[in-house]
Amino acid sequence: MSPTVAVIGSGQLARMMIPPAVALGIELRVLAEAAGSSAALAAASVGDYRDLETVMAFAEGADVVTFDHEHVPQEVLRALVDAGVAVRPGPDALRCTQDKLAMRARLTELGLPVPEWASVSSAAELDAFLAAHGGAAVVKTPLGGYDGKGVRLARTSADVADWFAAGGPLLAEELVEYRRELAQLVARRPSGDIVAWPVVETVQREGVCAEVIAPAPDSEGRLAEVAREVAATIARDLDVTGVLAVELFETTDERILVNELAMRPHNSGHWSIEGSVTSQFEQHLRAVLDLPLGSTDLRQPYAVMVNVLGGPESPAERYAAALADQPDVKLHFYGKSARPGRKVGHVTAVGDDLDDVVFRARAAAAFFEV
Amino acid sequence: MSPTVAVIGSGQLARMMIPPAVALGIELRVLAEAAGSSAALAAASVGDYRDLETVMAFAEGADVVTFDHEHVPQEVLRALVDAGVAVRPGPDALRCTQDKLAMRARLTELGLPVPEWASVSSAAELDAFLAAHGGAAVVKTPLGGYDGKGVRLARTSADVADWFAAGGPLLAEELVEYRRELAQLVARRPSGDIVAWPVVETVQREGVCAEVIAPAPDSEGRLAEVAREVAATIARDLDVTGVLAVELFETTDERILVNELAMRPHNSGHWSIEGSVTSQFEQHLRAVLDLPLGSTDLRQPYAVMVNVLGGPESPAERYAAALADQPDVKLHFYGKSARPGRKVGHVTAVGDDLDDVVFRARAAAAFFEV
Repeated sequence: MSPTVAVIGSGQLARMMIPPAVALGIELRVLAEAAGSSAALAAASVGDYRDLETVMAFAEGADVVTFDHEHVPQEVLRALVDAGVAVRPGPDALRCTQDKLAMRARLTELGLPVPEWASVSSAAELDAFLAAHGGAAVVKTPLGGYDGKGVRLARTSADVADWFAAGGPLLAEELVEYRRELAQLVARRPSGDIVAWPVVETVQREGVCAEVIAPAPDSEGRLAEVAREVAATIARDLDVTGVLAVELFETTDERILVNELAMRPHNSGHWSIEGSVTSQFEQHLRAVLDLPLGSTDLRQPYAVMVNVLGGPESPAERYAAALADQPDVKLHFYGKSARPGRKVGHVTAVGDDLDDVVFRARAAAAFFEV
Repeated sequence: MSPTVAVIGSGQLARMMIPPAVALGIELRVLAEAAGSSAALAAASVGDYRDLETVMAFAEGADVVTFDHEHVPQEVLRALVDAGVAVRPGPDALRCTQDKLAMRARLTELGLPVPEWASVSSAAELDAFLAAHGGAAVVKTPLGGYDGKGVRLARTSADVADWFAAGGPLLAEELVEYRRELAQLVARRPSGDIVAWPVVETVQREGVCAEVIAPAPDSEGRLAEVAREVAATIARDLDVTGVLAVELFETTDERILVNELAMRPHNSGHWSIEGSVTSQFEQHLRAVLDLPLGSTDLRQPYAVMVNVLGGPESPAERYAAALADQPDVKLHFYGKSARPGRKVGHVTAVGDDLDDVVFRARAAAAFFEV
């Protein structure tokens, strides 16, 4: 019998689970929101992940249910668990990726380093927070934000008046002065083992990840240890199973603060397909099936990933030029239609000279600019 | 528009084209002989590859037709070409993998090093060949043999009397005294570019490939050059497109002789999935689509592949033990049912110490012995 993994969501993250599933003879099924999804090559059902009956039918007979996104409602998750389905990561863990206020509260409770924050339910509360934090704050809607959506820089409560009008508390955070953004990926299996990849540097443009450098330059020693320890603590204490991505700020005064969490393969780990002995996608499948985790060693001293954002209507028409120019770089396209700023693919270069690796990855990606 | 590659045959070779097709956004369709094939995850049609109508319908709209095996009849191949379908490799090239007598004649014509051979149509002709070659010969049925089938060691014509009775000439070859067997993989695109992987050593057991060591130990210099030159000559002069595998003997007197040809990804190249910057499966897709070929550099100094032959009924039940023991080794299973001696999967280890790499690959494979 082949192990069967049922993935809710059918975007590029589910799609990139297909290659390791093929290698390991794992049956992968995906629950897509619409036909023609990125991961439609896997056994694809189309249905609404918010509908319990749909999700229960989808999970039937699978060894484990896991995710390509964090939007499945808590009541659906809990009903699955109550029905005896292995849901990894589980509802309690996922709650901290669904609700940024719950995440901040939990991390604070665990004594982990986070920006100063407050739950603000009114303009007055936000103004008080602003006054106490130099007149600026990052304000986030607790639910449903990603890639810069649901995040605003506020200098007065009027900047988010529409969000207050929509109701519910908001998350206000100090405006962190950071040197750079980092991400730490770890994987944890239900039986408790945790492995960590090297901490990476992520370069954001307009709130969207543009480039990832693995490992983060000048991160050996204390920085790498702290990042790993923070992520491992979160994985363990929140009982995360599968891959956990922890987005971090490295502050100008050399502290590490936790920015966001994702409990699934993550854009900051795409480099691992070529760059690590075990990719984040293979590791996620192994972890949620409670199989022994693979080595996270680097295959080469450096890997650099550059996202293709927007992209041309037919990327394949540019393969010939890109591949001729960069015979060592690996192209990944997700079968998604072009839309300004949309992540439609990425390229990865590996090697032992960082400048050269960065150059080659950027050169390949440049062929797909519109 | 995604490029579409139509693969005739749906075994493990087609299956292992799925991961690079996913990465490159290539639509892969396979023509399977039966439902539930190894590559059924690709868009699978079920039909008879000997039936022209079936194959024409299957090829409809694809950018190129290629193969997981060499058994498609010449008349079907030629009808496809006549209908304007891009068939890669083409019928003339494929003929040399379908008919061993044609292959020997063509290689001899090209002046390439082959064992001494003759086409023998009667017991008397074979006896004459035996008398001239020390009383022993390797006799092969020209059509349809693989993995040791259709090959016999003959010391008298009586040893192959049944084959003569079945009619048609046989191929008689001198019994080569070889030090070891090698394989040289190259890839060629229609526009003419050729790339070569390093020559590898293949270890056969009972006529079936058991292990591959890449690169072949002590092969630097002249040996590697000769192997590469022989394979490149064959690819060019036979107008091969896609991956070409040339099985070679390294004789005890230090000559290289061509044993067999395969014009598709080949068991001797499975190591390239982890061991080379560009795997033979990605390269085959690039080559048949006439895209620029990728780097064939090694990622690590050595890669060793060990086949899983026969295998247990449920290999996945042994993953936990194998992966715990060998966190660096990669497992590949083909979704095929167990049968004694059948290739059901393989494992690959890479690293910089050959003894260690061999040990790890064998240790992982040993978990799947029955």
